[in-house]
Amino acid sequence: MKDLKLAGSKSKRSLIEVGGVALGGQEIILIGGPCAVESSIQMQKAAAAVKHAGGKILRGGVFKPRTSPYSFQGLGREGIDYLVRAAKENGLLCVTEVIDAQSLAMVADEVDLLQIGARNMQNFELLKLAGKINKPVILKRGLSATVEEWLLAAEYILAAGNSQVILCERGIRTFEPSTRNTLDLSAVGVAKELSHLPVIVDPSHAAGRRDLIPSLSKGALAAGADGLLIEMHPNPDEAVSDGPQSLTPEQFIALAQELRDVAQSVGRIFVSGERAETLESLRLEIDRIDRNLIESLADRMQIARRIGAQKRLDRVKDAGREKDILQRLIPLAEDLQLSSEFVKKLYALVFEFSVQSQIKSKLTNEKDLESLCPLGSK
Amino acid sequence: MKDLKLAGSKSKRSLIEVGGVALGGQEIILIGGPCAVESSIQMQKAAAAVKHAGGKILRGGVFKPRTSPYSFQGLGREGIDYLVRAAKENGLLCVTEVIDAQSLAMVADEVDLLQIGARNMQNFELLKLAGKINKPVILKRGLSATVEEWLLAAEYILAAGNSQVILCERGIRTFEPSTRNTLDLSAVGVAKELSHLPVIVDPSHAAGRRDLIPSLSKGALAAGADGLLIEMHPNPDEAVSDGPQSLTPEQFIALAQELRDVAQSVGRIFVSGERAETLESLRLEIDRIDRNLIESLADRMQIARRIGAQKRLDRVKDAGREKDILQRLIPLAEDLQLSSEFVKKLYALVFEFSVQSQIKSKLTNEKDLESLCPLGSK
Amino acid sequence: MKDLKLAGSKSKRSLIEVGGVALGGQEIILIGGPCAVESSIQMQKAAAAVKHAGGKILRGGVFKPRTSPYSFQGLGREGIDYLVRAAKENGLLCVTEVIDAQSLAMVADEVDLLQIGARNMQNFELLKLAGKINKPVILKRGLSATVEEWLLAAEYILAAGNSQVILCERGIRTFEPSTRNTLDLSAVGVAKELSHLPVIVDPSHAAGRRDLIPSLSKGALAAGADGLLIEMHPNPDEAVSDGPQSLTPEQFIALAQELRDVAQSVGRIFVSGERAETLESLRLEIDRIDRNLIESLADRMQIARRIGAQKRLDRVKDAGREKDILQRLIPLAEDLQLSSEFVKKLYALVFEFSVQSQIKSKLTNEKDLESLCPLGSK
Amino acid sequence: MKDLKLAGSKSKRSLIEVGGVALGGQEIILIGGPCAVESSIQMQKAAAAVKHAGGKILRGGVFKPRTSPYSFQGLGREGIDYLVRAAKENGLLCVTEVIDAQSLAMVADEVDLLQIGARNMQNFELLKLAGKINKPVILKRGLSATVEEWLLAAEYILAAGNSQVILCERGIRTFEPSTRNTLDLSAVGVAKELSHLPVIVDPSHAAGRRDLIPSLSKGALAAGADGLLIEMHPNPDEAVSDGPQSLTPEQFIALAQELRDVAQSVGRIFVSGERAETLESLRLEIDRIDRNLIESLADRMQIARRIGAQKRLDRVKDAGREKDILQRLIPLAEDLQLSSEFVKKLYALVFEFSVQSQIKSKLTNEKDLESLCPLGSK
Repeated sequence: MKDLKLAGSKSKRSLIEVGGVALGGQEIILIGGPCAVESSIQMQKAAAAVKHAGGKILRGGVFKPRTSPYSFQGLGREGIDYLVRAAKENGLLCVTEVIDAQSLAMVADEVDLLQIGARNMQNFELLKLAGKINKPVILKRGLSATVEEWLLAAEYILAAGNSQVILCERGIRTFEPSTRNTLDLSAVGVAKELSHLPVIVDPSHAAGRRDLIPSLSKGALAAGADGLLIEMHPNPDEAVSDGPQSLTPEQFIALAQELRDVAQSVGRIFVSGERAETLESLRLEIDRIDRNLIESLADRMQIARRIGAQKRLDRVKDAGREKDILQRLIPLAEDLQLSSEFVKKLYALVFEFSVQSQIKSKLTNEKDLESLCPLGSK
Repeated sequence: MKDLKLAGSKSKRSLIEVGGVALGGQEIILIGGPCAVESSIQMQKAAAAVKHAGGKILRGGVFKPRTSPYSFQGLGREGIDYLVRAAKENGLLCVTEVIDAQSLAMVADEVDLLQIGARNMQNFELLKLAGKINKPVILKRGLSATVEEWLLAAEYILAAGNSQVILCERGIRTFEPSTRNTLDLSAVGVAKELSHLPVIVDPSHAAGRRDLIPSLSKGALAAGADGLLIEMHPNPDEAVSDGPQSLTPEQFIALAQELRDVAQSVGRIFVSGERAETLESLRLEIDRIDRNLIESLADRMQIARRIGAQKRLDRVKDAGREKDILQRLIPLAEDLQLSSEFVKKLYALVFEFSVQSQIKSKLTNEKDLESLCPLGSK
Repeated sequence: MKDLKLAGSKSKRSLIEVGGVALGGQEIILIGGPCAVESSIQMQKAAAAVKHAGGKILRGGVFKPRTSPYSFQGLGREGIDYLVRAAKENGLLCVTEVIDAQSLAMVADEVDLLQIGARNMQNFELLKLAGKINKPVILKRGLSATVEEWLLAAEYILAAGNSQVILCERGIRTFEPSTRNTLDLSAVGVAKELSHLPVIVDPSHAAGRRDLIPSLSKGALAAGADGLLIEMHPNPDEAVSDGPQSLTPEQFIALAQELRDVAQSVGRIFVSGERAETLESLRLEIDRIDRNLIESLADRMQIARRIGAQKRLDRVKDAGREKDILQRLIPLAEDLQLSSEFVKKLYALVFEFSVQSQIKSKLTNEKDLESLCPLGSK
Repeated sequence: MKDLKLAGSKSKRSLIEVGGVALGGQEIILIGGPCAVESSIQMQKAAAAVKHAGGKILRGGVFKPRTSPYSFQGLGREGIDYLVRAAKENGLLCVTEVIDAQSLAMVADEVDLLQIGARNMQNFELLKLAGKINKPVILKRGLSATVEEWLLAAEYILAAGNSQVILCERGIRTFEPSTRNTLDLSAVGVAKELSHLPVIVDPSHAAGRRDLIPSLSKGALAAGADGLLIEMHPNPDEAVSDGPQSLTPEQFIALAQELRDVAQSVGRIFVSGERAETLESLRLEIDRIDRNLIESLADRMQIARRIGAQKRLDRVKDAGREKDILQRLIPLAEDLQLSSEFVKKLYALVFEFSVQSQIKSKLTNEKDLESLCPLGSK
C-alpha cells in the first residue's frame, strides 16, 4: 500500500508513551469507563473501579455522536471536569471523544488522549486537526472500513504531524443479528502486519451485549491486541447510553484478573489491580500460584530428563549452564522484589533434583540397566 | 428460539466422545491436516506432524466441493484409504467431509468423524442423512449463516437421531478484502450461550492466509473454543488447494506449543506433543519456564506480604496453613512425576522467605518503625 | 474468468425455449405462484391468476428447504400433481425446486423447468445431476455468492451437458434490516456482461415484504432482467410460508399491467393478460391512454416546430414526407386492428395542425416579424 | 420509528423547489457532472453536456474527502468559481459537497444546493450546521448505514430548521467484488414508505464502473427514484478521480434520452434535453412517436370494444363520458402548447371510430347475429 508512507513504515513498532503509560509495548493497557459522562459521582465510582482493576486510563464521552438527534448528546464542558477530576483523583489518565474542531479545541489541553469515533473515521478534516495537536489519538475503525482505509485514516493524522496514533478495532457491520457488530479479530493481525502502530480492541461496541465481553476480551489479548477499551458503568441499568453492553464495576474487576493469565500466555504483561483484600481471596490466589508452580516445575523436570537422554551420564551435571541460568534470573528477581538469596537457594534445589531425576531416568531407560550396576560406569 | 428443541437444551453441556477423545470437555482438541488428500506419503507426513504437535484428529478431504467444475474434485475412494491408514498408523482419529448420500455411505464406516462443509450447511437432505448415522458430525457454519440458522442446521441432525454434533466457526462473508472471510469469534460465545454443543474454530478458511493462523488460533482458544481445525500441508507450495492458508508441519508444531499456555490461561488443558528434541530448543523451553517461575514466585511473595499486612506480627508464621498447602501439593506433584522430597524442601524455602518478606514489609510500613528497632535490626 | 468456458462464451446470447416460451429474447417472462404447494384449490386459483396476468409459468414448491426442521417441508409427490394439473388446465408451464437426487428424479419428467434454490447453489453434486437432464434449470444466486461463483455454479450444469440454464438474482445478505435480503440489481448487468445466459429476478425473496414488490419488479425490468419470478398466493394470510412477501392475485394482476409499459420503455415486450373487466377499470385505462396521447402529440408538435425552424417557410409543408409516414403507419394500424380510414383522417388532422404550428412558430421567432405581416395575418 | 418526528411525517410528500426546479414532484431531476472540479474548461464542457441532456443541476466537488491524504483534495475556492460560472452560463443550478464548518460557510451563498457525502452521513455536527442554512441539502446514505440511520441523519438537518432534505442512495458495502458498492434499490421504496422526503439515486458511486450506469439508472427510475445523480466527465481517462465510473458527455446525453420513456412508463416525466438538431434525427423521433400513437390508439380501441361488450347496443355512444374526457384533456393540451381546436377535432374522430368499432365488434360477437338484422333492435 504505497500511500501508507508513515503508517506503513516497518523499521520498528511504535511505543506511545503518555503520563507514564506505554501503549504498544509488552504491557497490556486496560481502558475502562462509561459510554457517556453523566455525573461527578458516576465518574468517581467508575474511576475507582478502573484503578482497582489495574486499568490505566478512564474513558467517558462528553460529546456524543448519537444516531438520533433526540438522544442525549453529552454534558460537554461540565462533563470534561467530571472526567478529568475523577481520573486525577484516582491516579489515572483519561480519554474522551472529539467530534469537530470546537470540541477538539475544548478538550485538547484537558485530557491525556483523544478518541476519534467510528462514525468520524473518514471525517478527514477532523483527522487533519487531530494531526496538529500533541496528544495521542485513539482512532476507531469505521463500521464498514477496510483495514486499508483505517490505516489511511491514521495516515492523515500522521501526515499532519502527530505520530501518536493508536488503532482501535470495534467491530464491523455484517448480517449477523446476535451481536450489534461483528468483532474482527483478524484485523488486529492484519493492522500489525501492515503498520507499526499499536492496536487495541473495544469488545463492548462490537458485541453490544455484556455477556460476551469476557470471552471477546480474552480472545483479543490472545490474538495480539495491545490493550482493551471496555465499557463499564457503576449502574448499567440506569446508563443514558449503551447500558446493555456495559459491565458493572464488579464484573470489570473480575475480568481484569482473568486477563492477567491470558496476557502472560502470549508473552505479555497485565498487572491486574489490587486484589480484594480478604484473607480468603488472597489465599485462593496463593493456592492458584502454587498449583502453577508445581505444574511448571514438573514440566521443567520432564524437559530436563529429555535433555539428559541426549547426554552421556557423566555430562548430565552442567555447572556452566547452571551459572548462566542464575545470571539471567537474579536481575529479573530483583526487579520483581524477589530476594536473590532465595532464588539462589531455590535453584540449588532445582538443579540438584533435576540432575537426580535425569540420572534416574537414564538408568531406567537403559536396556542394559543391570549390567551397568556400578552407577555411571558407562 | 423455540425451534432449538434439542440443540437449545441447557441442562448440561455435551461431551462428545469418540475413540478416547472427548470434545467439549476441559481438554482442547486439535485437528490438523491438508485441505485435500493427495497421496499416501503426503498423509503420512501430515499425520506424523499432527501427532507430534499433540493433535488428536487428522483431517483430509477426499470429496472436494470446489467453486469451479474444472478444479481438482478429490481422490474419492483412493483418498479414504490414505487418510484412514495414516491416521491409524499414527494413533490418530480421522475426519473427512461428505457432500451427498453417496459419499456419506462410502465413508461412514471408515472414518471416525464426518464433516459437513460451509456450502452444505443448509443442504437439509444431507443433514437428515447425517442424523441417521452413529458418528460425530462437525458442522461448519455457512458463509453467510446467522448463528441461529447454524444451530437450526444442527437441529436437523439432532432431530434425525444423531446427538453428536460439533459446531465449527470458519469465518463469514464481509466486505473486508484482507482476509478471505472474517472470523467471527463472537459466534463461539453466542453458540455456547444458546446451545450445549461443543464449538470449535477453523481459522484457516477464515483467514485464507497462513500468517494470521497463530494469532487467530490463540484468540479462538481464549474466547472459549473447544478445539481448533487447522490446515497443514507437508508442502504448502505444492498443495492442490488452499496452499496459501496451510501451515507447514514445523509451523503447526510450533503453534501447538504456544497453545498450551493460552489454554491454561483460560482454565483449559492442551497437551502439546513431544517437543523438538534439540538441546537448544529444550533449553529455550527451560528458560521460558524459569522466567515464569520467578514471576510467579514474585507474585506469591507480594500476595503473602498483603496477607501479612492484615495480621499481627506474631501471627505471620502460620504452621497450620503451611501444612495444608503441602498436603494439597504433594499428591499433585506425585501425579506429575515430581519428587515429593523436592517439593517439601522447595516449600520449606518458600515459606521461610515468605515469612521474612512479610515481616520486613510490615516493619517498613509501620509508622512506628523506629520504636521497633530491635525487630528490624537485620 | 478463465473457468467460465461455457457460461462465458460471448458468441451470442442464449435463448432458452420450452413449451412455446422463450427466455432470454425480447419478451419478458413472468413466473408466479405460491412459495409452497398446499392444495389443489390453492394451485388452481394461483394458476388462474398467473394466466390472467399474462404470466407464462406457474411456480410452487413441493420439496421445501426450510431453516428449521420443524417447519412445513412440502407436500412432495402429492404436491407435484396439484402443480402440474393446475398449470396444464390453465395453459401454463410449471417449475418446482429440487433439493437432492431423489426429488430431482421424481419431478424431472413431470415439470417443465427445474429450480435450484439459493441454499443449494453450491451443492455441486446436485448441480452435476441437473446437468444430466434435458430440462431448463433456474439457478438462484446464493445468499452470499459473488456473481463469479454464481456463474461457476452454472458452469457445473453446463459442463455436465445441460445448456439450458437461467440465472435468477434473489437478493444477497447485507446488514440492512428493513428488507429480508438486499436485491442486487447490478448483478443483472454484471451477469449479462460476463455470460450469455438469461437472467431473471425474484424480488419476493429479496424484499421479504409485499409492499416493495411493484417497485423492485419495475426496477428489475428497467435494469435489463429477462423475466420475473414473483410469489403470489390466493390467500397470503394463510400461506404456510412466505405469506408476508406474497402478492394477492389482484395485486399480481395489477402489477403485471404496470409492467407492460416499463418493458416497452426499454425495448422489451410484455403482454399483460386480460384486464379486469369492470367498466370503471376499463375507463381508467382509457384515461391513462388519453393522457399519453396528448403528451405524445405535444411532443410531436414541438419536434415538428424544430424541423420547421430549419426550413424555408414555403417548404414547411412536405407532401412526400407525409405520404411516407402514412405508408408506414397504415400496415401497422391494420396489424393492430385499427381502421386505416381512421388513421388517414387522423393524420390529415395531425399534418394540418403541425404545419400551422410550425408556421406560427417560425413567424413568432423571426426577427423581421413585422415585415412579414401579410403571412402572420391570422 | 418514533424519532423520525419530522422526516417521518406522512401528511404529504415534500416538494423541494429551488431556482425553478422541483425535486420530489412528477418530474425526474437529472444531476450530472464530474466528481472533482478540475478546470474552467472542464466545467464548461460538463455543463454544456448536462444542459444538452436535459439535466437541471451541475455537480462538481471542490472539497474532496479522499481515502488517502496524498490524493487530490480539491481546488477549493478556485473550483467554486468554475462550478458556479459554468452552471450559470448554461442555465443550470449547481451543487457541491461540503465537509466541515469552513467549507460550508465558503459555499453556502454560492451554490444552489449542498451535498453531504456518504462518509459524513453521521458527522452530526456537520448535519446540525447544514440544518441552519436555507439551501436544499442532498444527503447521501452512508456506506453501511441502515435506512433508519439515514433518515435519522436527515432528521438532524430537519430538526435544526432546514426542511429541504433530499435523500440520495449511492450503494452499500457488501462482499460482492464486481461492483464498488451494491446499489440498494429497495432503499428507495423503504425510504419513501417511512418518509416524505424526495429520494434520488447515484448509480455511479455504487457501480464504480461506467458500463452499468445505463442499466442502474433505468432501474432506479422504474423503482421510483425522484432523480439521478450521475458522474460525467469531458474526458474520463484524464479525470483526477472516479474516471472509470464517469460517463462521457456523449454517453450521458444518450442515456438521458433513454430515460424519458422509462420515466413515462412509471407515470413520471423526464424532458430530455434538446435533441440533436439534424433533420434526420428529428424525423426519426417523429417516427417513433407516430408508432407509439398508433399502438396506443389501437389499445384504446380494443378497450373501448370491451366496454362496448358490457353495454346495450343503444348505449354504446355516451355523450356525457365524451364531454368529460375532453374537459380533462383540453387544459392538459394547453399546458403543453397543443392547440385545443386540434384536440377537439382529434377526439371527434376518436369517438366516432370508437363507437363504430364497438358496434361492429358487438355485432360480430353476438351468436344471434343474423336474427338481429335490424341494427340495435335488442
